[in-house]
Amino acid sequence: MAIPPDRIVTLLTDFGLSDGYVAAMKGVILDIHSQARIVDISHQIAPQQVAQASFVAQTAWPYFPPGTVHVAVVDPGVGSERRAIVLVNERAVFVGPDNGVLSSALPDSCRPAALAPEAVAVPDGTRVFELTERRYQLDSVSVTFHGRDIFAPAAAHLALGVRPELLGQPVDSIIALPPLRARKSADGSLQASVIHIDRFGNAVVSVRAEDLGGGQFSIQVAGRVVRGPVRTYAEAAGLAAIVGSAGYVEIALKDGDAAAALGVAVGDPVVVRG
Amino acid sequence: MAIPPDRIVTLLTDFGLSDGYVAAMKGVILDIHSQARIVDISHQIAPQQVAQASFVAQTAWPYFPPGTVHVAVVDPGVGSERRAIVLVNERAVFVGPDNGVLSSALPDSCRPAALAPEAVAVPDGTRVFELTERRYQLDSVSVTFHGRDIFAPAAAHLALGVRPELLGQPVDSIIALPPLRARKSADGSLQASVIHIDRFGNAVVSVRAEDLGGGQFSIQVAGRVVRGPVRTYAEAAGLAAIVGSAGYVEIALKDGDAAAALGVAVGDPVVVRG
Amino acid sequence: MAIPPDRIVTLLTDFGLSDGYVAAMKGVILDIHSQARIVDISHQIAPQQVAQASFVAQTAWPYFPPGTVHVAVVDPGVGSERRAIVLVNERAVFVGPDNGVLSSALPDSCRPAALAPEAVAVPDGTRVFELTERRYQLDSVSVTFHGRDIFAPAAAHLALGVRPELLGQPVDSIIALPPLRARKSADGSLQASVIHIDRFGNAVVSVRAEDLGGGQFSIQVAGRVVRGPVRTYAEAAGLAAIVGSAGYVEIALKDGDAAAALGVAVGDPVVVRG
Repeated sequence: MAIPPDRIVTLLTDFGLSDGYVAAMKGVILDIHSQARIVDISHQIAPQQVAQASFVAQTAWPYFPPGTVHVAVVDPGVGSERRAIVLVNERAVFVGPDNGVLSSALPDSCRPAALAPEAVAVPDGTRVFELTERRYQLDSVSVTFHGRDIFAPAAAHLALGVRPELLGQPVDSIIALPPLRARKSADGSLQASVIHIDRFGNAVVSVRAEDLGGGQFSIQVAGRVVRGPVRTYAEAAGLAAIVGSAGYVEIALKDGDAAAALGVAVGDPVVVRG
Repeated sequence: MAIPPDRIVTLLTDFGLSDGYVAAMKGVILDIHSQARIVDISHQIAPQQVAQASFVAQTAWPYFPPGTVHVAVVDPGVGSERRAIVLVNERAVFVGPDNGVLSSALPDSCRPAALAPEAVAVPDGTRVFELTERRYQLDSVSVTFHGRDIFAPAAAHLALGVRPELLGQPVDSIIALPPLRARKSADGSLQASVIHIDRFGNAVVSVRAEDLGGGQFSIQVAGRVVRGPVRTYAEAAGLAAIVGSAGYVEIALKDGDAAAALGVAVGDPVVVRG
Repeated sequence: MAIPPDRIVTLLTDFGLSDGYVAAMKGVILDIHSQARIVDISHQIAPQQVAQASFVAQTAWPYFPPGTVHVAVVDPGVGSERRAIVLVNERAVFVGPDNGVLSSALPDSCRPAALAPEAVAVPDGTRVFELTERRYQLDSVSVTFHGRDIFAPAAAHLALGVRPELLGQPVDSIIALPPLRARKSADGSLQASVIHIDRFGNAVVSVRAEDLGGGQFSIQVAGRVVRGPVRTYAEAAGLAAIVGSAGYVEIALKDGDAAAALGVAVGDPVVVRG
């Protein structure tokens, strides 16, 4: 058991911060690995919203140092047959339920083309193990809180340098969400949807900058047409399209809340034309 | 003054995260003990709700390493005659106002049988000191923010290894809340109440798994009868009873918010029948 | 490049905790400086509210150890002509946009007498540099998220001991907000305003204890007259005035929310009479 220096453990959950759940996970981690450095990604994922968690993960995980242990617990099937897994690739270590919440650890090319989550083959360069080894779990494992009883202990041991293959048997497929991309219509327009609304009311759309030609484009949304891109939020006059910091097209409203002004919600359809 | 390695300081308050209060406490701790590792339990306790803080503490404190310094500041009487205390037992160190917020550091058997908080004798194996020694407080102590001026400096010094008896005189009684338990009626039913509603809308009830026979039971709540236990949240069909991760009975609603569906709030009565 | 021991990095933003923005900043900092210790001040500043951020900073920054690197990102002009700066004084290091958010790092005497933010000369003992040096930024700098791409890398390098003059050219003026103080009328009354409402509903007023004679005073607010000071929140009977923990006069309501009871909001005028 080699102990790598300074492994960081990040936590992403839908537990909120009003209960003791997140703190219990941190206590478990620190009780196993007293030097662990724990960083919160977010605990404000809407309850059970696996796809939202995957999007938030995608905007934050890539910035952490190599070897970071990323834990994601959005787990509507806790205690059921869904597996608990650890995924290791060349970049980092990922721990969570096998329900798609770890999807952004996979290349887009391995993720399903369909609209729904489905099992995909574990790609080359990635290893996945099921978290079954009892000695890396709490002595008593509840059926309702695997964040505390299975995922936190696994993360602590992994951050201490326990090799992932010791935590359980290898598996060769995992559940993945489709990548957040648009589909091209016959007329060349992109049939997309709102994938996230951030704190400022910017509505993030499932179209990436590289999907567009590089010039002007328009977004048809909620009966309106919004044009862009503007270069900065400050340049917007009224509603405007912009390429946001995650590489996706966003609809913004200067000094205002675009999503509220348009009345749009996550999942609403939009059409983007280059 | 021996310096124990790696003492962790946890913080539990009703300060929220919109103001500078929590950060001021952290600054004070780090200015005294630059290596302190600080972990948030929660700062979202409803304002002045000592019992809620005690419940959240009970679900998180036991998972931290031995010797952790736990600070709880829910303090409606700040600046009044209520004492500021440190409690030390074989497991950890607890700092806060003497208003019951540290109750979960005491065995249930020492806590009052009555419904209201009351002064109880400090049990064997536990020591309590009043935080009166000025040199372990900020130079200027306000009457409105003892979290920053008294509790944070005390925690920092304790985490550095200052012996608790140096912080003030021993006291032999402290204020304790009644344990979160139900009372048994003549007909064998348990007269209980809702003690917490978590982020998912699960309504936690003041009955522990060990209070029940181990078989099926029912909960009479808000004019409804909810049966259980189901084993996992995913197994519930509609409203169901489950034994939650803190060992208490909970009312859950699959993919929904049980408390909202029932219209129940903390304090509402329920009757549990085994 | 001397590496000072144990520099802490604090973060103050309006990013909220539901998105991945704050975590992306932390990842960037840790990827550059794996030992950085990061402390959150608050991420719940209302979107784009620079003055609120400055007030919260003022209540927290002074309590941190000397040499702390304080980052504030409330940045409505991100990507526009506004400068990104680092300010160094004898106490600490401050990083953020040049829009007034760092004002509390300046002495009140240097801040504008007018009601609006304006450019002021950098005072003696303070140095300010524009963050232009590309090698201390991420390889790819977006126009919409300088928190991640410019401010976080700057903070990480500064915490590692990179001298601030290496990050860009010195500048001799910065944007400052007026200090949070009242103006005296001909009749001796103080024309003030509500500058903050805290989680408990206490309304903080732009009058400091030292602006008053030390005896009784009254606050005319929302058609009411509130008297004080009471010494502690617990002593208040109904609405009362108190000198709060930040040194400002506050309007409080025992076991209640004063701001809601009065219907006041940030910016509302009040008159204080000694």
